[in-house]
Order: sequence, then C-alpha cells, then structure tokens
Amino acid sequence: MAHFTTETILNQPSLFRRNFMNSINGIKTAALIGSIGYRGTTNLSVFNSVFHLGATPPYIGFIIRPLTVPRHTYHNIKANGHFTINHIGTDFLERAHQTSANYPENVSEFEPAGLTEEFSDLLKAPYVKEATIKIGLSFQEEVKIEANQTILIVGKVEEIFLPENLIAEDGFVDPEKANSVGVAGLDAYFDLSFKARLPYARAEKKPHQ
Amino acid sequence: MAHFTTETILNQPSLFRRNFMNSINGIKTAALIGSIGYRGTTNLSVFNSVFHLGATPPYIGFIIRPLTVPRHTYHNIKANGHFTINHIGTDFLERAHQTSANYPENVSEFEPAGLTEEFSDLLKAPYVKEATIKIGLSFQEEVKIEANQTILIVGKVEEIFLPENLIAEDGFVDPEKANSVGVAGLDAYFDLSFKARLPYARAEKKPHQ
Repeated sequence: MAHFTTETILNQPSLFRRNFMNSINGIKTAALIGSIGYRGTTNLSVFNSVFHLGATPPYIGFIIRPLTVPRHTYHNIKANGHFTINHIGTDFLERAHQTSANYPENVSEFEPAGLTEEFSDLLKAPYVKEATIKIGLSFQEEVKIEANQTILIVGKVEEIFLPENLIAEDGFVDPEKANSVGVAGLDAYFDLSFKARLPYARAEKKPHQ
Repeated sequence: MAHFTTETILNQPSLFRRNFMNSINGIKTAALIGSIGYRGTTNLSVFNSVFHLGATPPYIGFIIRPLTVPRHTYHNIKANGHFTINHIGTDFLERAHQTSANYPENVSEFEPAGLTEEFSDLLKAPYVKEATIKIGLSFQEEVKIEANQTILIVGKVEEIFLPENLIAEDGFVDPEKANSVGVAGLDAYFDLSFKARLPYARAEKKPHQ
C-alpha cells in the first residue's frame, strides 16, 4: 500500500504530481465546450470537470483554471454570455482530443480538429455536430475559489439536443447508449458498460450483500 | 432528435426532471464521503460530484445541496474540519448505495450498510476499509453558489492511500485497475474499460482520423 501526504505529493516531480492529482478522483465525463470570441472566432476545448448543480432551474457547473494565461473559453463566455457542452463520443475521440493543442486566438479549433460547427437559433455559441448529446447554456454566475484562484462557471441550461431513444421513461439518459467516453486524468479515455440501476435506498432495508 | 428548452425541462414531472438533469452530464466517479459529527457519530454518504481543483497544492472539490434540510456531511466537516473520499468499488457497490438511505443523525451508516471504519493518525474522519483508493482531506473553503444556494466544499489533500501497482510511472492512477465504478444520474452504475491514452496534442499535428 502506498501512502502519500501533502508533503510527499508536493515533493514529486511536477509531471507525476499533475497526472497523479488529476487522475486520483477517477472517471469523469469528457466534454467539448464551444464558445465564440468577441471577434467572432469560434473556440472548442476539452473539459473534464463538468458537473450537475441543479434541476429546478437546470444549472450545470465547470471549473476553469486560474487566469494566469489567456483562457479563451472564459473570455468568450464573458464576452457573449453563451456556451455549449458536447459529450465526446468514442467515434471522434482523437479529433476531440486535438482541440487541447495550443492554437492562437484567431484560429478556431473546429477546423484543425476536423469537427463541424452547428448553430441553433437560441444560442451565440457553436455546437459540435458530431456529438450525440449537446447542451446549450447561458452564463449565470462565476465564483472564484480563493485557495488557488480557480473559477467555477455556473451555466443555466437553455436547451438540450439528444436522440429520443437515449431517454428512459423516468428521464434517465444512458451515457453508454450515447457512446460517450469517460476520461481519467488528462489523457486516459474509458468505455462505459452498464452494470446496474439500484433501487432507492431505504433505511428499513439491508443490502443483499 | 429530442429538443428541450429551459421551459420544457421545467414542465416535466419532477422525477423525470431530476433524473434527466442528473444524468445529462454523463459519467462521474461514485465516492463515499466519510466524516464525524460533533457528538462522535461517524457518517458516510454517496457523492457523485467530486472533482479536481488543483495539484500544487492538492485541492479537491465537491458539491453539497442547499441546507434546506440537515446535511450531516456538511455539518460534520464544519465541526471537525476533516473528511475522507473513498472510491466505490464494484465489489461493494450495493453496500455503498445503501448509505444513501435516510438514517437519523445518531446512526452511523457504516453499520447498516455493512462497511468497515478505518482510521489514520492524521485525520478526524473515518475511511472505508473496503475502498481501494482513499483520500483524506482537511476543510479549506466553502463557496456558496448564489443561483441556487448549493455549496462547493474545497478540501486540501492531507493524505492518500492506494495500492502501489495502481500508479503508473508518470503518476497516472488507473480507475479500472482500482475496480472503481462510474455513476450516471442518481442510481445507474457503470464498469470502465480502458480505451486509450492519447499523446499531448500539438497544434502542428493533425489527428489520425
């Protein structure tokens, strides 16, 4: 059994520490966030920290790293007030990953990555045509985390596109049927395979095991 | 193709809306958060919104719902300053899920769920012995999200326990080797199967596809 403390983590080489701390929380959704800059250039970036914040009204959050270098996604969302979240599918994983390369502000990641822009009437932000699940959001709030200056962006869901057959009768959306990949750390992708839906847990009942 | 807007989402029955919005972001890590109340009762709860916030120093965040009812995990963390994050493994999934039942404050979820407490010298919070990856944290900061009064808890990593053989040379920790499950929505669990680690993306290079 390995045991790390804050100090032994900080004493690791920086690449090790980065990979270790990024992967230690396990699996997350791999998403492409689409936005448009104030000069009109579209932008697409991989994010793996997208999370549920509320259903009524529908809010979703994600984390942006400190603004020590230009963060196009952040500045675009502040400029236009809109962004999209597009699940990365197994069939365009490599193209999606390519958007994490460092392109200048006047280059849209869509073109070099070989992905296709798609627009709806509601939103000033590009969707990824190749994605099965597409969520359009308006900027709601930003919250700075004092500990390390990372920023939580809160978006209000304006619209969602997805194939009818992914939605169960009770509203559940199956990420395996959507061919969505999971990501661990910065670069490791995983397929999902359905295991179980467990019934609502009640205090009166003991688990089978 | 189904198209939902804010309004059509809000017009769904509440159970549908809850399942839909909780699952629309796809896969997340299923974790048990362990804590101790001010009277000494241990607590264990399933959370699926644990995310990376930083590596240097190591910070992890998670979301707590609004304090409209007592949230034992929140009050315990504020009382003792410590909590643990334990990956839910495929081998104790049903027992872990059972902790989401509504037990009174003076009952520890460990006992009815059939899970085992484990303590380290560093932390005033219980680990789950059955978990393969265990992270001990101290309370660093809380941030209220104005939009809907959810709370982001920021923890500083104090220590991590995991088997040596899960850690790659470059620091990457493989969640499939750890038998960690992913969760979508509130109750759907998925196995992970490794697909690929993709190389650092460079602007000069085009993806293969």
